Amino acid sequence: MLSLSSLLLRRHRLHFHKSFSTLSLPLRHPTYLVWSSNTSLGKTLVSAGLAASFLLPLPLPLPLRRRRRFLYLKPLQTGFPSDSDSGFVFRKLSALSSAAATHPFLASHRVLKTSAADRFGMADSDFRDEFRFSGGKGADGAPSELICETMFAWREAVSPHLAAERETGAVEDSAVLAMLQRRLEMGLNSGVDEEEEVNAFCVVETAGGVASPGPSGTLQCDLYRPFRLPAILVGDGHLGGISGTISAYESLKLRGYDVVAVVIEDHGLVNEVPLGSYLRQRVPVLVLPSIPQDLSDDLIEWYKDARVVFDSLVDTMLSAHAERIKRLRDMPKKAGNVIWWPFTQHKLVSEEDITVIDSRCGENFSVFKAEDDGVITQQFDACASWWTQGPDAILQTELARDMGYAAGRFGHVMFPENVYEPALECAELLLEGAGKGWASRSYFSDNGSTSIEIALKMAFRRFSFDHGILNDDSSERRTELMVLALTGSYHGDTLGAMEAQAPSSYTGFLQQPWYTGRGLFLDPPTVFLCNNTWNVSLPEGMRSSSENFENITFSSRNEVFNTNRDKSNLAETYSLYISRVLEQYPKSEGLVGALIMEPVIQGAGGMHFVDPLFQRVLVNVCRSKNIPIIFDEVFTGFWRLGTETAAELLSCVPDIACFAKLMTGGIIPLAATLATNAVFDSFIGDSKLKALLHGHSYSAHAMGCTAAAKSIKWFKDPRTNPNIVSEGRLLRELWDKELVYMISSHPAVERVVALGTLCALELRAEGPNAGYASTYARSLLKKLCEDGVYMRPLGNVIYLMCGPCTSPEICHQVLTKVYRRLDEFSRIR
Amino acid sequence: MLSLSSLLLRRHRLHFHKSFSTLSLPLRHPTYLVWSSNTSLGKTLVSAGLAASFLLPLPLPLPLRRRRRFLYLKPLQTGFPSDSDSGFVFRKLSALSSAAATHPFLASHRVLKTSAADRFGMADSDFRDEFRFSGGKGADGAPSELICETMFAWREAVSPHLAAERETGAVEDSAVLAMLQRRLEMGLNSGVDEEEEVNAFCVVETAGGVASPGPSGTLQCDLYRPFRLPAILVGDGHLGGISGTISAYESLKLRGYDVVAVVIEDHGLVNEVPLGSYLRQRVPVLVLPSIPQDLSDDLIEWYKDARVVFDSLVDTMLSAHAERIKRLRDMPKKAGNVIWWPFTQHKLVSEEDITVIDSRCGENFSVFKAEDDGVITQQFDACASWWTQGPDAILQTELARDMGYAAGRFGHVMFPENVYEPALECAELLLEGAGKGWASRSYFSDNGSTSIEIALKMAFRRFSFDHGILNDDSSERRTELMVLALTGSYHGDTLGAMEAQAPSSYTGFLQQPWYTGRGLFLDPPTVFLCNNTWNVSLPEGMRSSSENFENITFSSRNEVFNTNRDKSNLAETYSLYISRVLEQYPKSEGLVGALIMEPVIQGAGGMHFVDPLFQRVLVNVCRSKNIPIIFDEVFTGFWRLGTETAAELLSCVPDIACFAKLMTGGIIPLAATLATNAVFDSFIGDSKLKALLHGHSYSAHAMGCTAAAKSIKWFKDPRTNPNIVSEGRLLRELWDKELVYMISSHPAVERVVALGTLCALELRAEGPNAGYASTYARSLLKKLCEDGVYMRPLGNVIYLMCGPCTSPEICHQVLTKVYRRLDEFSRIR
Repeated sequence: MLSLSSLLLRRHRLHFHKSFSTLSLPLRHPTYLVWSSNTSLGKTLVSAGLAASFLLPLPLPLPLRRRRRFLYLKPLQTGFPSDSDSGFVFRKLSALSSAAATHPFLASHRVLKTSAADRFGMADSDFRDEFRFSGGKGADGAPSELICETMFAWREAVSPHLAAERETGAVEDSAVLAMLQRRLEMGLNSGVDEEEEVNAFCVVETAGGVASPGPSGTLQCDLYRPFRLPAILVGDGHLGGISGTISAYESLKLRGYDVVAVVIEDHGLVNEVPLGSYLRQRVPVLVLPSIPQDLSDDLIEWYKDARVVFDSLVDTMLSAHAERIKRLRDMPKKAGNVIWWPFTQHKLVSEEDITVIDSRCGENFSVFKAEDDGVITQQFDACASWWTQGPDAILQTELARDMGYAAGRFGHVMFPENVYEPALECAELLLEGAGKGWASRSYFSDNGSTSIEIALKMAFRRFSFDHGILNDDSSERRTELMVLALTGSYHGDTLGAMEAQAPSSYTGFLQQPWYTGRGLFLDPPTVFLCNNTWNVSLPEGMRSSSENFENITFSSRNEVFNTNRDKSNLAETYSLYISRVLEQYPKSEGLVGALIMEPVIQGAGGMHFVDPLFQRVLVNVCRSKNIPIIFDEVFTGFWRLGTETAAELLSCVPDIACFAKLMTGGIIPLAATLATNAVFDSFIGDSKLKALLHGHSYSAHAMGCTAAAKSIKWFKDPRTNPNIVSEGRLLRELWDKELVYMISSHPAVERVVALGTLCALELRAEGPNAGYASTYARSLLKKLCEDGVYMRPLGNVIYLMCGPCTSPEICHQVLTKVYRRLDEFSRIR
Repeated sequence: MLSLSSLLLRRHRLHFHKSFSTLSLPLRHPTYLVWSSNTSLGKTLVSAGLAASFLLPLPLPLPLRRRRRFLYLKPLQTGFPSDSDSGFVFRKLSALSSAAATHPFLASHRVLKTSAADRFGMADSDFRDEFRFSGGKGADGAPSELICETMFAWREAVSPHLAAERETGAVEDSAVLAMLQRRLEMGLNSGVDEEEEVNAFCVVETAGGVASPGPSGTLQCDLYRPFRLPAILVGDGHLGGISGTISAYESLKLRGYDVVAVVIEDHGLVNEVPLGSYLRQRVPVLVLPSIPQDLSDDLIEWYKDARVVFDSLVDTMLSAHAERIKRLRDMPKKAGNVIWWPFTQHKLVSEEDITVIDSRCGENFSVFKAEDDGVITQQFDACASWWTQGPDAILQTELARDMGYAAGRFGHVMFPENVYEPALECAELLLEGAGKGWASRSYFSDNGSTSIEIALKMAFRRFSFDHGILNDDSSERRTELMVLALTGSYHGDTLGAMEAQAPSSYTGFLQQPWYTGRGLFLDPPTVFLCNNTWNVSLPEGMRSSSENFENITFSSRNEVFNTNRDKSNLAETYSLYISRVLEQYPKSEGLVGALIMEPVIQGAGGMHFVDPLFQRVLVNVCRSKNIPIIFDEVFTGFWRLGTETAAELLSCVPDIACFAKLMTGGIIPLAATLATNAVFDSFIGDSKLKALLHGHSYSAHAMGCTAAAKSIKWFKDPRTNPNIVSEGRLLRELWDKELVYMISSHPAVERVVALGTLCALELRAEGPNAGYASTYARSLLKKLCEDGVYMRPLGNVIYLMCGPCTSPEICHQVLTKVYRRLDEFSRIR
């Protein structure tokens, strides 16, 4: 077997550019992106004005005791060296500081990588300039410092994606981001003692317009998105400029940016009035005096006029930064006072335990940490936001635009007897996909729990008609109806869904005094990986059987799913066991009116892998007795387990199935209950009272259906989801098999289940360390949090979850971190 | 009393510009908006090219038997008359048709209103040109016709909002839309016999960029939104043009427009490649040859080169139009086959009954009707999309942008132990607003029903602790807990919510075999308006009381709410009645562990106005017995009844309250259960098992909380909601009082309730015509549908619902329609 390090190396070589990035952004000093709605609107002049306003304050606070530093970064420059925005800022400030002749001033200008020196690729550059001015009379304070840096420069004066294509080849987004992060850190900290207090300010000036492509072709508004730096937008004061400015603003908002100010040049058209009105005065619109055509005086006169605007802009940016930090800092305390979290014992949550999430980009959270004057750091959301979230960064942007579109087009539209495009498309896609071959109707509701309540109502009606319990429209109570269900199952938290699950921590009098548990609950056999082997574990009630099934093992997961197991002795044992239980159930207790189960994996119950053979046999027995079959695919559906539905893994179909969570790509609540025509028919009649009278105001809401339609298509299309193999029916293996096997052999690990986007493991634990209320995994997860992996345990069961589009390389890196920390964890224990 | 017609006239005079518009758009011929990402990108050249391609087809189908007509509309023209885009199209086509010299050609050019003739306002214009060409040899077909029209023209070459301000004063949006509708109808139909088949095509060319202001200051993308015409976007082929094109596209999408093609001029920068990649090839990007600087040959050579592009563009537009119509036409049938609507007896729904909703804009649906080759018509959504929808057109656009922002910034982020801005802001706003003075915690869930299930769990826990039923963490079943509730109430469709309501059509064995009704249900006294008088109706059980309360009436609604009624004899009677019922309830049946009720109005139960005095007394009795009080404000909350919460109308506070529906402005599902500190405290302990273990994956989802935070603020701020009076605490009267009184005296009407955004009336009916399953109101609502009012009955109760920002003028117009149809309805009966 390969060692862990050689495995890692192999991966690294193959996929260095897809590395799981842990970007981190210090918040000590204000750092802004400068965007523009078009080229040539004076972005660089604004940057220079900001630098001047910040570094050459008027009236001068003499002596300037505290060092002031302005960092100007130009990540992408084309038309170089004749065009150099950082050179422009450098020269402009040098001239202005000389003219001001007041206090010491230090400026440098550097180009880091350029194709201008080397026609055949990017080379480290030797372009470097410095300017030092000792200051006027009595200038005894610390010098003002200006650092201007160009990160990547190309010769041709075209868009960076074209220049890169022609001169150097594409530059990966991750390379731009990594260098930007490094230059921010260095630029703000280099040459500064740890104790020294510096007033620093940084602007990162983009190239072209907000949606101009970067050197990989990625639009710049998408490229820089992981940092989500606050922004200022240089708008357009020309005729027609209102439109471009508003549209650029909207493109930034659509990607989750916060714009703190809009700046335009005065062209006598008072564009600031409609812009201010559009922004409802919430974002200031600042107007710069008209820029003279003749730039021979280095704009010194113009700058004098503009000074008051720049000062106000700097103030706006500084105070927006301070407010943001304050808000982020205060959030845990405030949240602790007003929020009541689900599944959370507030007494056990201290302020430090609360995670402040500033944003998310694809699979990663951006988390605020209060240390070191505040820092924003990336964490892989291994809860895939609590079992729902599916998009990578690309799909997230697509969905954001679609959400805006759906809200803009429909707002909300009531559903009964109405049809509108997203609802119809979503219903069609569900029946062609998840319901293919069996379902004929789609019933929408709001979440998994409601979809289950609806499913139960459907099943009981069908059962009642099939079994002659109801043959007219009378509403009288005829008999007690029960569900057949599995212990360890979970179907939701509303009472109807609770009643269909076995007694558990969730169902006691303490939680819901109305719970009675209206089910006949079977202990299912489970499957798990341990010591490199897939094992079947039979429940107590089945072990007494004459045959010895103690050591049923499989060498691969595929064997577990193989339908040739249907002919095994075990299959017969399962069948007899189920039939016996059903027959022994006294009719006086009620009739079993529905089978309900989570196919393949019981999620909330602890990530248990139920033997698919058992579930298939269960379905067959119920079908033979005309008991409607409900699959609860709320957790398992939509690629969670590597196929669009878990039913495909079982190789059998239900009469009713429930979907939610990942159905919308995991960004917005929506649920669907699919049903066969036979089920639908039992609600047809002459009276409205016979119809299914269950609904929610937002049934099939336009945004949810739009997100679902997009995601359902996106996830299964190999053009949009690179993980799709096997003619659109399977995800490739996301969790490195060797690493999974290594973990399954780890002494701290009881069992592992890796399937589709899920990799779960149970830590070996006993007594109070085991079970849902256990805090056993806490120290391990804390360490993983430091590694940038955000996890939440199910007692002593921990899991990683990714999206259907997440690259196996990222999964591998995250799983490796888990493996490493496991070692440490078991050493400490 | 004023007559109806004089009332109408008075309203009309006062508010003619706010009239309830019933825009209607025929779909027989393709009609497109031509947008541009900036000025001067060749929009008009594209329009001319489309006209040429459509009117002068190559190869010529000779003889041209079918008439072809191209309608070019320029709604807003500045710089007139020296700039005239419709003049340009007219001249270009005249030249091209002469040059082609093939078949008869007829062109006209007209300017309808202009400030150029009259410095002091808009005047009907006399600018008019015509061109007639008889065609070349053998030209025996019908002539091709070109109609070019400018609707409004101003002299100065600035943005329309500036030109209008300086020359004519603002032109109302409704005036632009009304004229556009008229010109579309006339232009496409004038001079055409009814039987004659004409191939027509229309483009409406906008001015400037997509977000350039129109003459009222409204952005053009918002101005034209009610029509939601399909669009083509003329993008920018210059350096930097990718960005502007993408941003303009996104601004259109954010407003729900469908863009069928993007056209750019070739500038050698292959902008079409990144544009195509951004659009994922779903929208074609067409490239026009570079436009020569020298236009002396009338671009005839250029047009020859561009012809193939225009032909392809026309094809794209024609086929997109045909596909759209086909899809709209097929939707009812398809929906009838795959969708299972809630609360709908499918057997009673024929294809004709299904409403096809193409979009909504503010309060209005745009509905597709198949008649006359298809037409899109506006309907006032009087169900305010089933009791949720609140925004007018302005707020809808704001929310659409915010939804894009929230999805772009957060996607979805799991909630427990996490905090992120929208969730915190929403929680804070809820506690400062709806929960002010009593609530200290906000618990989020997905919909009204789940918020009720949570409220019940909270109340029972609090009750159990207060009454010594639970004093440790044991989960054993201790006693039966019941709710005290009102008959006629409705709390949702999940089992727990159902159990808290009295038996009804919704709760029988047929609907939910598990329902038992765990409540002590009181018949409440109700209030209603009839014959201009507010009356109290006492339930059977109370009438036997010694005093005679047969004729309790009020002259105004305010009197009903007046707290000085607390000292009345009736109050004492209520109190005695409630106490007696509670005392008579046998403990062996269980304990009353919570009071749950909808304050003021019972919605789904039939829009019953419960006597607020009774509810206040009920709250006081329960409070004295330490029974937790739940207000179900799912329907009544957030201005539905004219105040932020109905609790304000009652002048008392609950311990727990549930909100949903309008909380997000009514566009996306989200619910909150607010609770006092005492309730929260009963979940605090050392074990997680004592925490409230109820949650949904999308708890406090970012989009929902963002929409809620925006809407909560928007609705109560007089700067954004003109209906706010009384220092932000009340909506002004939306339903004309006189008209409401007139309706209350109508012989067909049993009772009326008008409060806040709700105006409900019960039709006088008996036997099967009364009650939830009644179809009595059907014919009336069908007529109102023809009037452009979309309603859905609750049996023989019908209602109008608007948003908190809807203008009283619109409400008045809609209510007038109801009044008129009532007359007709009662005559027919």
